[in-house]
Amino acid sequence: MESPVPKTPLLTAAFIACCAAGASPARAQDEAATPYRSMGEIIEASSPSDWRRPDPANTLYLELDSGRVVIELAPGFAPRHVANIRTLAREAYWDGMSINRSQDNFVVQWGDPDGESDHPRSLGSADARLPAEFDRPSKGLAFHALPDPDGWAPQTGFAEGFPAARDPEEGRAWLAHCYGMVGAGRAMEADSSNGSELYVVTGQSPRQLDRNITVVGRVIEGIELLSVLPRGTGPLGFYEEAGQRVPIRAIRLASEVPDAERSAIEVLRSDTPLFDELVEARRNRRDEWYKRPAGHIDLCNVPLPTRKVEATQTP
Amino acid sequence: MESPVPKTPLLTAAFIACCAAGASPARAQDEAATPYRSMGEIIEASSPSDWRRPDPANTLYLELDSGRVVIELAPGFAPRHVANIRTLAREAYWDGMSINRSQDNFVVQWGDPDGESDHPRSLGSADARLPAEFDRPSKGLAFHALPDPDGWAPQTGFAEGFPAARDPEEGRAWLAHCYGMVGAGRAMEADSSNGSELYVVTGQSPRQLDRNITVVGRVIEGIELLSVLPRGTGPLGFYEEAGQRVPIRAIRLASEVPDAERSAIEVLRSDTPLFDELVEARRNRRDEWYKRPAGHIDLCNVPLPTRKVEATQTP
Repeated sequence: MESPVPKTPLLTAAFIACCAAGASPARAQDEAATPYRSMGEIIEASSPSDWRRPDPANTLYLELDSGRVVIELAPGFAPRHVANIRTLAREAYWDGMSINRSQDNFVVQWGDPDGESDHPRSLGSADARLPAEFDRPSKGLAFHALPDPDGWAPQTGFAEGFPAARDPEEGRAWLAHCYGMVGAGRAMEADSSNGSELYVVTGQSPRQLDRNITVVGRVIEGIELLSVLPRGTGPLGFYEEAGQRVPIRAIRLASEVPDAERSAIEVLRSDTPLFDELVEARRNRRDEWYKRPAGHIDLCNVPLPTRKVEATQTP
Repeated sequence: MESPVPKTPLLTAAFIACCAAGASPARAQDEAATPYRSMGEIIEASSPSDWRRPDPANTLYLELDSGRVVIELAPGFAPRHVANIRTLAREAYWDGMSINRSQDNFVVQWGDPDGESDHPRSLGSADARLPAEFDRPSKGLAFHALPDPDGWAPQTGFAEGFPAARDPEEGRAWLAHCYGMVGAGRAMEADSSNGSELYVVTGQSPRQLDRNITVVGRVIEGIELLSVLPRGTGPLGFYEEAGQRVPIRAIRLASEVPDAERSAIEVLRSDTPLFDELVEARRNRRDEWYKRPAGHIDLCNVPLPTRKVEATQTP
């Protein structure tokens, strides 16, 4: 006799997914205080003030043949690097350059492939060397802490919309190397980066890099254009042949792009009661699929939802 | 005047990489007891007994047009599922089937795309439904614990070569959803999986799935053939068109493949003093690049090195 396959092998997928709905009313009623809402329901119920629109002057468009990657810069954490990156973008430094590295479960990286040669591309009016911006004073920084412990840092949470960590005793805060975070490659010396060589985390959060390198922002759209790039077969995932490199059409500041060509994206604010509800809904999933809610979430597992909005109306 | 670019923009990359060597003798001497060795140096110094060769009877070859993905099964954790998977492989269940889903920063998944239709592929002599194998008694399991705390479980470490977690109070142990781990998709009911629908973690460790689904093994080679697959644009990363699915030539047990066609792979043992040294070298990187060793490592950041060995000699 042939045994039937389960009736919902595809639903299978649905329910190991990030945002499956399906809150069970029966279970929800068991919970005295708060009826459970899934992430989808929480977002559905959001109001306009739960969202923020990144500043176009601190938003980069990385234009590839496959589409656009949108990066939000973090001037609150790396002001000097962000200023330099803005200069480089304004002066078209990366246009016609390439992505040179894709290392599985680690990073994708771009910059001048001839940087080590005797004919590197000119940095124009950008600085060649900047002080390290590995961390910053936590004083004056609105830090929205997560409820759970973290092994890498005394405290984790969100600051200025980015996953971050904090040491209250030292009074320092820094950006955390989660999936999609963007950093400035450097050589041996702490102050050897300038933002011209950038990498994006495309694997398990390499938090050991925190406070060892300057983090400059986060990919808020289009990460899947980077994460699928063929892995380089050279050491550290570098492409061995120039022809394998992925061309960069241009990197531009959103503020330098005509309104009509901008990607109008909003990011869910990470300092609101609605966001806290979302975090709790992910800490303890109370839908029918989950049999044992974790009661925990790691910083780099917290989703930061985005949505497209209508392009700005010009009057 | 043009400012020179840093002299080592490519080295930059080298030193944010996983296994950069470059231990500083000067520093190492500062450390009284143990001279520091990098991961590369530790592996270099390994002896044959530091390595193990996965059992061919519990090794799957997923054959794609792009190459072979090697999966080590975990009968110690999911005996019923592994037995069923062996039956399915032996009966060529997946041959000519496809990978149907690739969700960014989450999973790749394969199985019968017609499973929900009225003409699913026959499971042959495999069972259609199995009891959940979400965890197992920790008694009788050699568990090699990591030194650091973990937010998701009371204890983490390695068991039978796999990343795992343990609750000493409950006396239970389970496999952890790290990058490359393989699980058996299920529907709503805990006992609705049979191993015919498999997923591989290709993003930030979704540890919330631990103890909610049966984990059956780990990709030990070829994960980069899965992690680069184009992301599906349908809900949950499913491919919307049949033509987008990635063909599976075959899934076979290594033990059913002629010796000459086997991938001879050894995995570094995770229960040796050498492995402990490797973990410590990753917890506290004492090379010149790292300015602030983390003093911590998460379970899913611990590398499990593999190496190719000469094919078995037939006499």
